[in-house]
Amino acid sequence: TERPLTDNEVFVSYLASPINPADINTIQGVYAVKPKLPAIGGNEGVAKVVSVGSAVTAVKVGDHVIPSASSSGTWRTYAIMEDKNLIVIDPKIDVLAAAQLTVNPCTAYRMLKDFIPVAKGETVIQNGANSAVGVNVIQLAKEWGINTINVVRQRPDLDQLKHELLALGATHVITEEELRQKDVMDGVLKAVPKPRLALNCVGGKNATDCLRVLDSKGAMVTYGGMSKQPLIIPTGSLIFKDQRFFGYWMTRWYADNA
Amino acid sequence: TERPLTDNEVFVSYLASPINPADINTIQGVYAVKPKLPAIGGNEGVAKVVSVGSAVTAVKVGDHVIPSASSSGTWRTYAIMEDKNLIVIDPKIDVLAAAQLTVNPCTAYRMLKDFIPVAKGETVIQNGANSAVGVNVIQLAKEWGINTINVVRQRPDLDQLKHELLALGATHVITEEELRQKDVMDGVLKAVPKPRLALNCVGGKNATDCLRVLDSKGAMVTYGGMSKQPLIIPTGSLIFKDQRFFGYWMTRWYADNA
Repeated sequence: TERPLTDNEVFVSYLASPINPADINTIQGVYAVKPKLPAIGGNEGVAKVVSVGSAVTAVKVGDHVIPSASSSGTWRTYAIMEDKNLIVIDPKIDVLAAAQLTVNPCTAYRMLKDFIPVAKGETVIQNGANSAVGVNVIQLAKEWGINTINVVRQRPDLDQLKHELLALGATHVITEEELRQKDVMDGVLKAVPKPRLALNCVGGKNATDCLRVLDSKGAMVTYGGMSKQPLIIPTGSLIFKDQRFFGYWMTRWYADNA
Repeated sequence: TERPLTDNEVFVSYLASPINPADINTIQGVYAVKPKLPAIGGNEGVAKVVSVGSAVTAVKVGDHVIPSASSSGTWRTYAIMEDKNLIVIDPKIDVLAAAQLTVNPCTAYRMLKDFIPVAKGETVIQNGANSAVGVNVIQLAKEWGINTINVVRQRPDLDQLKHELLALGATHVITEEELRQKDVMDGVLKAVPKPRLALNCVGGKNATDCLRVLDSKGAMVTYGGMSKQPLIIPTGSLIFKDQRFFGYWMTRWYADNA
């Protein structure tokens, strides 16, 4: 290090740091988190402990750690951090997985747990199903016996993507176009019950299309708006179908549950 | 009557029956209730009992009654009804008020009670504030010490309307245009806290404008869509402000709570 560590400081070397859409939005200045400039990007990552201050006991040299505070700036090779802002993880966890532990898997878990009870045998629909959150939802839902209808965009390698998501445990994988085709959806909804929960990271027209298959008294949880379009809800969805609409933000969950 | 009454039948003469927007929508065929044709319009009203069948005890000749079942067809002079579908009311209740007891006051009451707790001193914003529901919301909120921001359309007799709503207990009455003016809203929100609850019977642009002043973690309850436009929710309202969206339908409440 360039300077001696104080008592509770830890010198770490980053092993891997992902780029989340929220990181890009933060740089663009359109995110709800606005770091004081100059700032280092990156909200999550995994680091190895290189050296520790004299009072540090919770962390030791060689440990794998992840930052507990958000927006600590993980896009860097080295950092000096307070020991209280580090969580030690099992070094056997694959580094690429460890680097992505605090945002997307937690978002998937909480969205499945906190809004509307979805029992074994029931169904969740999600758009952006090949997102980092989406693949976590697929795996958790499979583990819990919940069906998933997974909406993805049309693309040249669609067959390969469908194959990958089905291999992870997806029940159905359909394109945004197929979601609007009555014959396709009749087939899907013959195989699984109407979804009780819709997870939305796209917004705009596609989110409204998801609503059309959502069951009465179902809920849509929005955690992103990748189309840059607002959520558009037909009045009948609210009044006659009693569908409810929530948002989810991992940063707020941490703040509310710290 | 044209025929003798059976044991549990009651012959009534309607005194007054209102026309609600939902009645018009039902005739247009765009409402969620689709009566079997031929059908008689009208969902609520007040009638006087003219004669009763031999087994009827809950209702007597001269009683003022309102129908307990929805869509019984109240736009008529006479009706033969089952005694179990009638509720006796105090004949001292003004006939015009009695005719409007089962839809709009109940909607106002339940929307203020069932979604998000609004304490004394807190604020509700509503559009269509001069609607039948709106004036009930104003009166209930005043009774409970809740502030109301009441949004109405620009009109030639605006001053008179404002005067009427303020006389009922409205805290603020503003036009849809004023809702979009920062200086007006700064003044309103200096006098009362940011609203926790928004009641929406309009949809479209005006509902989105109401959202902009809704507090974080606040809720919007939609009970109408008079603009015929959907509810348009910016993604940030859901994710960053944690605002929640519900629909309310009196017909469903009766069905769920019968």
